Order: sequence, then structure tokens, then C-alpha cells
Amino acid sequence: MIKRKGLLLVVSGPSGAGKGTICKEIITRNKDIKLSVSATTRKPRDGEIHGVNYFFLSKEEFQKMVDNNEFFEYAKIYDNYYGTPKSAIMESLENGQDVILEIEMQGAKQVKEVYPEGVFIFVLPPSLKELKSRIVGRGTETLEEIDKRFSCAFEEIKKISDYNYFIINKEVSKSADELQEIISAEKNKVTRYKDNIIDKFKEELEKC
Amino acid sequence: MIKRKGLLLVVSGPSGAGKGTICKEIITRNKDIKLSVSATTRKPRDGEIHGVNYFFLSKEEFQKMVDNNEFFEYAKIYDNYYGTPKSAIMESLENGQDVILEIEMQGAKQVKEVYPEGVFIFVLPPSLKELKSRIVGRGTETLEEIDKRFSCAFEEIKKISDYNYFIINKEVSKSADELQEIISAEKNKVTRYKDNIIDKFKEELEKC
Repeated sequence: MIKRKGLLLVVSGPSGAGKGTICKEIITRNKDIKLSVSATTRKPRDGEIHGVNYFFLSKEEFQKMVDNNEFFEYAKIYDNYYGTPKSAIMESLENGQDVILEIEMQGAKQVKEVYPEGVFIFVLPPSLKELKSRIVGRGTETLEEIDKRFSCAFEEIKKISDYNYFIINKEVSKSADELQEIISAEKNKVTRYKDNIIDKFKEELEKC
Repeated sequence: MIKRKGLLLVVSGPSGAGKGTICKEIITRNKDIKLSVSATTRKPRDGEIHGVNYFFLSKEEFQKMVDNNEFFEYAKIYDNYYGTPKSAIMESLENGQDVILEIEMQGAKQVKEVYPEGVFIFVLPPSLKELKSRIVGRGTETLEEIDKRFSCAFEEIKKISDYNYFIINKEVSKSADELQEIISAEKNKVTRYKDNIIDKFKEELEKC
């Protein structure tokens, strides 16, 4: 094995496109990919567990982490704060472990600024109609919140050019296959290994 | 389906690394990928067929194509000429068809200059020792040719940074899997679609 840093896989896209389910599927398939757990001040949805889906924090707790510079990025989305704790991710990457980050678009933008070598993946709904019916079907948002989210969707899609890859999420297992292929291909990228490949052969040559 | 141009997959690497067998396997698996047939002035090896493996040309025939500017690139490698006929490839790409090009490194370099949006893949042997034994085992080269090829191998490997991806060719079917994943991932690259993705959703929005 030739050494490389871990991949930081940043999965984002409009709310309701299905980034969460795709990430969950990838984690189930790959025991060696670590899911980064974000912190948030929003209320848990049914079945969401503290420390698994999110670290659910009070506004005061969140602010304390901000003050201590403990976030990779953080943002306010629809009246709630979301943040990505920094140190655990950086440590994993340095150890060659791949980390997946499911994140809102504002957050993804900040991550790209500080960590451009991440792999930025944009999850799209098959159509805007389908997106709306998914948000409604989730039944966790008020009508006002649904309208707010939907009206942003097209504006958000226009930001796709900030991303490396896109996945049109029609069927979760198919989308997870595509993400899997992206991960595999990224592991074959020359730039991820600096001079480690040349060094491997140089070493052999010197032993001759 | 959102429209895109075909991928030009340029597979290169040191002689004996096994680019030919990987490409053959990919073509067998994907009936929709077209293998570009190169022209050469070298003599056919056992089992090689004109128009399938290469267009085997005389030096005069080759020179005529050069004069008529019919090559995408051409180069002299170990006393023989190799060239990539241009028009068929460009036509396929424009029609959205993916084309695979197995090519020597000098040629790959020229292709990159005129077509940088190609996908450049470097095939490596598992070790230099293994590379030498493969060239010897092929039994098609004279001892002098073998020495010439082998002494270039390390110098050639140093050029890996001109490529997008690498594949360490230990086992053909595993290498073909990796190439397959690279192809799939490239089809999910945002830059390959220009504004076609945004336009798709814009159209839907306008119909609302």
C-alpha cells in the first residue's frame, strides 16, 4: 500500500434531496469510512439520537464551542445553528482514514475554503416536483418552513459548479453505488499521493 | 439523461505494464465504449489483426497521413511510428460516445496538449522486477529492445504527475474494475455538463 491522507467527502445539496439516506447507506457498506457527527441547536426529529445523528446542543453550548474555535465551519440555517467539530476530522484524515460529512450548502462552502482538497459532492433531486413532495412527506417541517426550503432549492442548484461531482438521487442504492465509485476513483488520483508513488519505485531501483 | 460530450480515456504507462490487456477487458465489458485503433509502422505480433489491434502501415503510407494532417498525435518509438487517426475520435466524442485510447507516453503527452479534458490514466506494474519479467516473457522483443524499454521505465514512471489517475496492474480484472470506477466517477463530474444540469431544472421551473 502506498500512503495517502484520508479523503474528506463533503456531501451537500438542497434540503430534501436525500443526502442523509445516501450517507447512511455508504456508512453501512463501508465500515472503514467515518461519518462526521455535526453539532446543531435544532430539535431532534423522531428517532434521531444525540451523538449519532447530531450533537444536539443548546444555543449557549454551541456559542461556547464557537468562542473556543472548535468548529471546522458553522452556519445559521433557518433559525438554527449547525457546526462541524474540527479536531476529530483532521486527526482521522492525517491517519489515512476517509471521513464523510453530510452538510448544508453554506457549511460546504466554508469547508471548501479551508480544505479545497476535499471531494465535494452535490446531491440533486430527480425533479423539483419530487423535491417538494419529499419535504412535505417528511412531515417534520411547518408549511412556512416547507415554502422557505423549496423556494431556495433552485437558487441552491445554481451553485452546483462549486462542486466536483453530482448525484441525481432517484433511488438510494443506485446513488450509493455512484458515490462508491467516486470514492474509489478518488483513491486512484495521482495528486493524492504526492511523490509517494515515484518514491516506491525509486526505492526498488536503489536496491537493485 | 442530461447531455454531455463523450469521455476520451487515454490509457498509457511504461511498456509491459499491461495497458493493452486492461483496455481489452474494458471493451469486452462495455459494448458502448469505442476503442480507438492506432496506426503503426511496426510489424504485427502473433495474432494481431490489421484494423483491430492497429492499422499496420508502411512508412510511406504513414508519412502520407502525417502530410495530410490526419493524426491526433503521432510519435516515433524505438524506430517505429505510431499515430492516432483524428476524425473518427472527435466525431464519437461530439456524439456523446466514450472513446478509449491505448497509447505510448509520448503520444499521451501530445493528446493532453490538444485535448486536456481527456481522462489520463497511468498504468503501473506492481514492481520494476515484475515489469522486466513481463517484457521478457512476451518474447516479442530482442534482448537489446528489452534493455532499451526497461532502462526507460523508471524515467517514464517519474512522469506520472502529468496524469489524472493511476492503476497498479497486479491482476487484470481488478485493474479493469478500477478503470471502470474511474469512468463512472468521471460521468458524475459537474464540469462535464457545463450548464446542462442547471438548465434542466430551470426548464421545469418555467413550466410551473
